[in-house]
Amino acid sequence: MSLSEFDLIERYFRHCGVKREDVCLGVGDDAAVLECPPGQRLVAAMDTLVDGVHFPHGAPPTSIGHRALAVNLSDLAAMGARAAWALLALTLPEAQESWLAQFAAGFAGLARRHNVALVGGDTTRGPLCVTVQILGHVQGSAMLRSGGRPGDALFVSGTPGDAAAGLALEQGRWPASPGSRYLRERFLFPTPRMELGERLREYASACIDVSDGLLGDAGKLAAASGCGAQICYADLPLSQPLLWAAGAERAHELALTGGDDYELCFSVGPGQIDRLLAQMPPQRWGYTRIGTLREAPGVDVVREGAVVAFAHSGYDHFSGPA
Amino acid sequence: MSLSEFDLIERYFRHCGVKREDVCLGVGDDAAVLECPPGQRLVAAMDTLVDGVHFPHGAPPTSIGHRALAVNLSDLAAMGARAAWALLALTLPEAQESWLAQFAAGFAGLARRHNVALVGGDTTRGPLCVTVQILGHVQGSAMLRSGGRPGDALFVSGTPGDAAAGLALEQGRWPASPGSRYLRERFLFPTPRMELGERLREYASACIDVSDGLLGDAGKLAAASGCGAQICYADLPLSQPLLWAAGAERAHELALTGGDDYELCFSVGPGQIDRLLAQMPPQRWGYTRIGTLREAPGVDVVREGAVVAFAHSGYDHFSGPA
Repeated sequence: MSLSEFDLIERYFRHCGVKREDVCLGVGDDAAVLECPPGQRLVAAMDTLVDGVHFPHGAPPTSIGHRALAVNLSDLAAMGARAAWALLALTLPEAQESWLAQFAAGFAGLARRHNVALVGGDTTRGPLCVTVQILGHVQGSAMLRSGGRPGDALFVSGTPGDAAAGLALEQGRWPASPGSRYLRERFLFPTPRMELGERLREYASACIDVSDGLLGDAGKLAAASGCGAQICYADLPLSQPLLWAAGAERAHELALTGGDDYELCFSVGPGQIDRLLAQMPPQRWGYTRIGTLREAPGVDVVREGAVVAFAHSGYDHFSGPA
Repeated sequence: MSLSEFDLIERYFRHCGVKREDVCLGVGDDAAVLECPPGQRLVAAMDTLVDGVHFPHGAPPTSIGHRALAVNLSDLAAMGARAAWALLALTLPEAQESWLAQFAAGFAGLARRHNVALVGGDTTRGPLCVTVQILGHVQGSAMLRSGGRPGDALFVSGTPGDAAAGLALEQGRWPASPGSRYLRERFLFPTPRMELGERLREYASACIDVSDGLLGDAGKLAAASGCGAQICYADLPLSQPLLWAAGAERAHELALTGGDDYELCFSVGPGQIDRLLAQMPPQRWGYTRIGTLREAPGVDVVREGAVVAFAHSGYDHFSGPA
């Protein structure tokens, strides 16, 4: 391992992502210097992926690079913000060139797609762990978790549960089935819903990104909004590959409690629903109504008139399945 | 371990640091929303501390919390920026309340001293590792590493080498001596030179923070400035406790190659030196002239007319001592 920290940064990270006019000083000094667009607010988030916790040990480095950025972009999407700059803290047991090249390619590919410049960070030696800090902008107000009201319709983008099934396949816990590859890709290369988030700012009363399981994350949105929610079991959008791989019962359960989807869950007030459906057709934008916010706290899933119970609602890092 | 991720954040980090008017939305949503002061540039840095690498395993949690913020503040100091907001990514093997309370106290104490609000981050389970991202502002241009010119005087703040000695004492590698406690404090609770950095912007041609050893970091400043440097062995500022603990020879070596000082090394053009010395008296501001930038690349340490050789010049995470 002859690659120095300096060479490593120079070779793989100095020109990772796009070049942006608003970066006065990028990678290579003690800090980055950035030009904030006047009249806009700065939006900042930071998420960590730990080896063996957020991805299986030995996961493809391209996927780790992609996901480290994607999970952060998804936080900006949930606020309705546009991404601009990222910083990367990479802790590695050793500086393996092929691993680094693939990791950087995964990160850079997604960065280019969303016009993100990598402007700084840190590389250190230790157990594999990746923290990305993302900075973006929002004009006017951001979407919060807390703006929902009883009576608002509740929506989710994409087909939740796919990523959890993809992880089970990736780990060899499930046998292959038609659509296995699609499911694995949903885990390895999630799509942050940037354009959807930015557009939703005009319509949504509240929004959260679905990272720890739809049931739990919808519950967080409802709680932050001072209300509860009812989710209709039959309305959950399930992908065909998930139904093939898991069967209908298990597919519904994964859609509600599986993690790593990085979709958006959002509420829309009664006065905005028609406008949303007309101006952003659900088929084109890929979202589905799944329920309604209500006065009573908590989240119920209703199936043929009865409330369904789940063993857990999502993932919590310090108390496990919640 | 019954503390959930949500409780942990709520209890220890929601109100960590100061309250600032420019924080529209802090800890608790998908991202923070921040108001950038008009006419100023944003300055961003990110540094990681890994258990057993950047601090000894079992180090006091108050120190870990302090240092995680201090090393980042020091990067802003080197740019001449004023700190405003921080994000914290904390990876922990388990959520131990007493550890968390002390860590948060160490972080918050320093944050309050420098008017920093903790606005977001992430807590995850895994091997102990702390990444802090710091955001600050600079009016006009930041100090870069690259602005030095041959003939500029080279300075350093504080008394480098103290932290490396403190670490040796902390790890029990050295016997106690008068001033041991002072040296250990220099390692455990380094002082980021924020006020000095901000004021130096008017005088310095280049600046870097000394984190990996003065010799190596002065070399980085010189190389970024397209020149070399000569350091005068006899002019190195050494603390009395370091001399007591290490003796004169070893003290000089530690001042040049020990890490973790978080002092500032800066160059000042001939036309600015008198003004600097008059308006910012070295005794009051705690800095010392140690050498001169020169045309010839590389850094030489000169002792009684001869160039001294050192086994290594500082610390590199991927190739070890450089």
